[in-house]
Amino acid sequence: MLYKDRSKPVPERVEHLLGLMTLEEKAGQLVQPFGWQTYEHNDGEIQLTDSFKEQVQSGGIGSLYGVLRADPWTGVTLETGLSPREGAEAVNEIQRYAIENSRLGIPILIGEECSHGHMAIGATVFPVPLSLGSTWNVELYREMCRAVARETRSQGGAVTYSPVLDVVRDPRWGRTEECFGEDAYLIGEMAVASVEGLQGERLDGEDSVAATLKHFVGYGSSEGGRNAGPVHMGRRELLEVDLLPFRKAVEAGAASIMPAYNEIDGVPCTTNEELLDGVLRGEWGFDGMVITDCGAIDMLASGHDVAEDGRDAAIQAIRAGIDMEMSGVMFGKHLVEAVRSGQLEEDVLNQAVRRVLTLKFRLGLFEQPYADPVRAEQVIGSTEHVELARQLASEGIVLLKNEGGALPLSADAGKIAVIGPNADVGYNQLGDYTSPQPRSKVTTVLGGIRSKLAGTPERVLYAPGCRINGDSREGFDVALSCAEQADTVVMVVGGSSARDFGEGTIDLRTGASKVTGNAQSDMDCGEGIDRMNLSLSGVQLELIQEIHKLGKPLVVVYINGRPIAEPWIDENADAILEAWYPGQEGGHAVADILFGDVNPSGRLTISVPKHVGQIPVYYHGKRSRGKRYLEDDSQPRYPFGYGLSYTAFNYSNLTVESDTIDTDGTTKVSVEVTNVGDRAGSEVVQMYISDIASTVTRPAKELKGFRKVFLQPGETQTVEFQVGSEQLQYIGRDYKPVVEPGEFRVHVGKNVNDTLSANLFVREG
Amino acid sequence: MLYKDRSKPVPERVEHLLGLMTLEEKAGQLVQPFGWQTYEHNDGEIQLTDSFKEQVQSGGIGSLYGVLRADPWTGVTLETGLSPREGAEAVNEIQRYAIENSRLGIPILIGEECSHGHMAIGATVFPVPLSLGSTWNVELYREMCRAVARETRSQGGAVTYSPVLDVVRDPRWGRTEECFGEDAYLIGEMAVASVEGLQGERLDGEDSVAATLKHFVGYGSSEGGRNAGPVHMGRRELLEVDLLPFRKAVEAGAASIMPAYNEIDGVPCTTNEELLDGVLRGEWGFDGMVITDCGAIDMLASGHDVAEDGRDAAIQAIRAGIDMEMSGVMFGKHLVEAVRSGQLEEDVLNQAVRRVLTLKFRLGLFEQPYADPVRAEQVIGSTEHVELARQLASEGIVLLKNEGGALPLSADAGKIAVIGPNADVGYNQLGDYTSPQPRSKVTTVLGGIRSKLAGTPERVLYAPGCRINGDSREGFDVALSCAEQADTVVMVVGGSSARDFGEGTIDLRTGASKVTGNAQSDMDCGEGIDRMNLSLSGVQLELIQEIHKLGKPLVVVYINGRPIAEPWIDENADAILEAWYPGQEGGHAVADILFGDVNPSGRLTISVPKHVGQIPVYYHGKRSRGKRYLEDDSQPRYPFGYGLSYTAFNYSNLTVESDTIDTDGTTKVSVEVTNVGDRAGSEVVQMYISDIASTVTRPAKELKGFRKVFLQPGETQTVEFQVGSEQLQYIGRDYKPVVEPGEFRVHVGKNVNDTLSANLFVREG
Repeated sequence: MLYKDRSKPVPERVEHLLGLMTLEEKAGQLVQPFGWQTYEHNDGEIQLTDSFKEQVQSGGIGSLYGVLRADPWTGVTLETGLSPREGAEAVNEIQRYAIENSRLGIPILIGEECSHGHMAIGATVFPVPLSLGSTWNVELYREMCRAVARETRSQGGAVTYSPVLDVVRDPRWGRTEECFGEDAYLIGEMAVASVEGLQGERLDGEDSVAATLKHFVGYGSSEGGRNAGPVHMGRRELLEVDLLPFRKAVEAGAASIMPAYNEIDGVPCTTNEELLDGVLRGEWGFDGMVITDCGAIDMLASGHDVAEDGRDAAIQAIRAGIDMEMSGVMFGKHLVEAVRSGQLEEDVLNQAVRRVLTLKFRLGLFEQPYADPVRAEQVIGSTEHVELARQLASEGIVLLKNEGGALPLSADAGKIAVIGPNADVGYNQLGDYTSPQPRSKVTTVLGGIRSKLAGTPERVLYAPGCRINGDSREGFDVALSCAEQADTVVMVVGGSSARDFGEGTIDLRTGASKVTGNAQSDMDCGEGIDRMNLSLSGVQLELIQEIHKLGKPLVVVYINGRPIAEPWIDENADAILEAWYPGQEGGHAVADILFGDVNPSGRLTISVPKHVGQIPVYYHGKRSRGKRYLEDDSQPRYPFGYGLSYTAFNYSNLTVESDTIDTDGTTKVSVEVTNVGDRAGSEVVQMYISDIASTVTRPAKELKGFRKVFLQPGETQTVEFQVGSEQLQYIGRDYKPVVEPGEFRVHVGKNVNDTLSANLFVREG
Repeated sequence: MLYKDRSKPVPERVEHLLGLMTLEEKAGQLVQPFGWQTYEHNDGEIQLTDSFKEQVQSGGIGSLYGVLRADPWTGVTLETGLSPREGAEAVNEIQRYAIENSRLGIPILIGEECSHGHMAIGATVFPVPLSLGSTWNVELYREMCRAVARETRSQGGAVTYSPVLDVVRDPRWGRTEECFGEDAYLIGEMAVASVEGLQGERLDGEDSVAATLKHFVGYGSSEGGRNAGPVHMGRRELLEVDLLPFRKAVEAGAASIMPAYNEIDGVPCTTNEELLDGVLRGEWGFDGMVITDCGAIDMLASGHDVAEDGRDAAIQAIRAGIDMEMSGVMFGKHLVEAVRSGQLEEDVLNQAVRRVLTLKFRLGLFEQPYADPVRAEQVIGSTEHVELARQLASEGIVLLKNEGGALPLSADAGKIAVIGPNADVGYNQLGDYTSPQPRSKVTTVLGGIRSKLAGTPERVLYAPGCRINGDSREGFDVALSCAEQADTVVMVVGGSSARDFGEGTIDLRTGASKVTGNAQSDMDCGEGIDRMNLSLSGVQLELIQEIHKLGKPLVVVYINGRPIAEPWIDENADAILEAWYPGQEGGHAVADILFGDVNPSGRLTISVPKHVGQIPVYYHGKRSRGKRYLEDDSQPRYPFGYGLSYTAFNYSNLTVESDTIDTDGTTKVSVEVTNVGDRAGSEVVQMYISDIASTVTRPAKELKGFRKVFLQPGETQTVEFQVGSEQLQYIGRDYKPVVEPGEFRVHVGKNVNDTLSANLFVREG
């Protein structure tokens, strides 16, 4: 059979196979049931469900979503879920059945969530993307993506629903943590690393999975920060800001993309032909697969209300350029009926099938559909991956405040009270889109500190004090007496995006975790958990204020998924660390920084407002942005790019090599950065560009380059940036990219508000 | 001279005059210096300034802005300002000089602010537009506009910078009070009334002034509610929502329009050719004059930064369709230089001059450039106008809560404590864009209540309690002891948009107003005063909470310019009246309602949020709007259209005459409304339309008709609405209006959340 001949070009194999397929088989390739519903797991035995078998025999299954996903939504727990080896075996059993019991033996595309680690039991849990963005370490993130792809593919996962490339403008949004931040350029750099890391050199490599870019597009601008709410945005902003990271990732070869739930100016992204056909496939030449978000086609008929019913929705979607619907089989059924009834040309459906088959061929699934369970056991959660998770976590932590040498703490003397609801509840530091993990695998801040002071365990005291949500103060007195006995208090507060995995809530008096049926009770972040405040939830602030009265040095560690606006803490804490959700190694990473074993190098990729009423405060706003509020200015508390170090860096000799260039020219910008402190450390050197006058209004400054450099005390390094059309262009009056002649200003420095500046003149040419 | 011959058609006169003009004279027609800088006023004598005279002689002056405006900005006070008669005389002197001392004797176009009354000393101060909107009484508002035009023209004002047609989406914005509300349809109805009222039958009528529509466009959607901030909006929303009221007003014959300060998607409105040339003059056929906002051309070069310098800005502006710059003479100077240097074709300038001259001819200024000081004295502040102000104020007051029969108050028994910073400070109830008025002219709530109980003055107690801003509690004890002696407490709190006119702050212990130099100290609203909270400013809530502890029946009256989010008051007050800034008769209007002499009939035209973090909550959002927040839902506290009455209205028999119509057909919708209570009262019957499925997403409900009806107890009235393409159309996928076949739903009721519904089917035809 030609289509099974690996020596033939993929397009030929696709056409051949397509020619053999019935209408039902074609439609079958466009659906994606839930993976965890294909089998039952009892006493180590996998039993395929009847519904799965029937589906395979009646048209087949293009893809499965989340075979290994475990969380309250799937109902799969740590106890009922599969180990890495079992997972690979289960996937193989599913795959084998599909291949051997269907007419054409087409392998299933196994789709898994991998935003910051494979969403499966046992997989390494890396920090959430907001933390990954804060590392500004593109290389390290690329390595992580390689590791994630390795863990995922070893269990049979072939496509993943990351990276998330949304540009966050409103931190009320619960998915803020899933994004790299508010800057399109930085997201674009991470996007490229993500595609390169996940997909590797070749999609059919044993460590490669297909990346799915999401959410295309504008999803980070939903009205009121309400998840999937409508987006109010003009075409120019869309082209210039939100589409940029997607374009970068497509140029890097991304194999798959997912339209967003939201609408933009009245048109749902799921049926936005102008974007899917015009921009993505047309202008950018994207030739991969387009898969909807979960249930997004349904939403066209009930929610967006742009379709009469499910069939109409399916027809509109496939016409607009959708190839597959995530979750369920209705898309396929509707399409079959639509073709049979003459409402849809079979050619339109063929085109979608082609794209799905092409991806499967490119992934090498026809040649090697099976995972290697032994390898899965070896690579998943390997020491290298865990070490990488720790390094990323420590680089993603941002030191927001450090007064009077509060940090680093002494490793040699003094008692430390570790207090707060996030001090020792591991699942709270994993973030959304993680499966449950054995408690022993996750190091909490308490665990990290105890491990640092393993020789003097009496120096570490602990009390949870309160929960994240709710108003119970029953843990206050234990926490206060714990703090009273200490020389320094480390308060670990913040939020939680972890769906309750049964590990349950903590006993506020003993600190012990206990299992409760009280699922999600401490969640205040994550998908669907949008907030109308940016303050700490529950009575956390009150607990901190009570403890502050004792007058001990107070270090606040935030473990959370969105910027926190707590002016009192900003003013009264001696030191503040923003750790975001730092993943399974988070406790070690925080302890490394608390004790100075690692010098903090994370920098904010999202502006931290003073108050929810100031929103939006993203740095990328226009110069004509409007003035202060009656109560306060409209500036964030901590600006974009901000973050402290235990050492100090000095910038000098900012030089623009040619201070006049042609519109198609380039020049080099260099700056000398010196570590003028007494500790080694990394600095994130940031380059911003301003256009002095332009035919459309421009942001005051735009990030156009950055470099993370490591400097020994006294060391100076010259950091260079290229400036050319990539850095100078914007979307002009005619909605096309343009480099306009005239004055520019180049700014290089430590954050958006602390830079050296130089002029650059661009002349027509 | 042909151009002076009134029997000739205006275009001929314009061309003739234009042909006689030098370049400088042409440019002179396009500028508008500040009117209050043309003269000095000493001991009743008007002295024209040298700079004015020079300007007249060297090219002339097209227009003057605010000859009679008095406020801290102009420096004109109640003491130094002009009485109505003096004002008319001053305008005449200015006009006479300009006519007699220029080569061609072209009269000056006197431009005045008239948003809710002529912004001049002595003029009647009507309620602010947010209150006018809340009346839902289009007829009454039209009458008001006639009155305002009469007062203005009698003093020589020929063009006014109202109506404000911005669609408010963010109540943080300080200019919320200047707008009719959040709904484009309602604003459109008011817009038409405004043009008809201000302009009358003919622009050269003695009671007519030219209306200037503003701010064109999107100004009510500025980022973060920050005044003049950038607007993020797609073209469809712009066409469908924000442009609608402007189109209505243009169709009604508006003679002038003002582009907004803001940019939309990168393009400042001042140079938005697509809107000015394409939509306004092209599609809509607008043939009037376009005048910038104050200093908006400057802002192109410094702020928006889309122009290299002032001359570039002027050239861009006139090319985009600007005819005149408000304030200053630089626009003209730049244009002369630009023509001389060959950067601008004189034809472009000629076109702008034509439009200015056309307006002057249409206004009859060449025939009758002078005001009649005697008439000014008669009509300004006339009894009829004052009575109209009182009626509008009472119809604009919204009863938000009334529990346990707290209202109306008994006129016969009990002591009333009137407490709060807005109880007796008249200038706080006038709103922004008002000139100072003699204290005797303004009736405060205390004054209104005293006047009701004039026979038993001992029944009324008063204490200010606190100021609007600041944290002084020195008036608390006086207020508490005052409340203690009373049977009912009426707390009059809220905000202030009044620039301090020298009446100054109140003495918190005696309640007396005193003159201070502390200008604007109590302002928390108005242009440029945006807020990041929607709570009451200062210690007002605390004062209310203290007084509430006394356990007396508590009535809260808000006098303010934007929605207030105070959940505690919503829960704990017995009754709440939202009076907005009710103008000079506001105290009588509030008292009329407090004592039941008027049955409240105001309805919200803006949704009142529970918390600033919920914004936006405007009702007009899409169905796919996103879900609740962790802390609360995303619904407003009080919905659009909401307002209570002292009687009750029942809706029944909603009927759609033809339940199936063609796409170009119409049908009649009728409903029976019965006053089932025991008091006469007015009800605002509101019709909303929903489109069940449509090719672009739609709001859940859209206001498409309303009628205010007065019903005696037991009376039933059948209210009819027409439904046709006007009500059913929206802006389709191709950005053109369309009526789509399919299911619609017609809702009629008392507010957006309390309606009867019926189906309407539209078929192709």
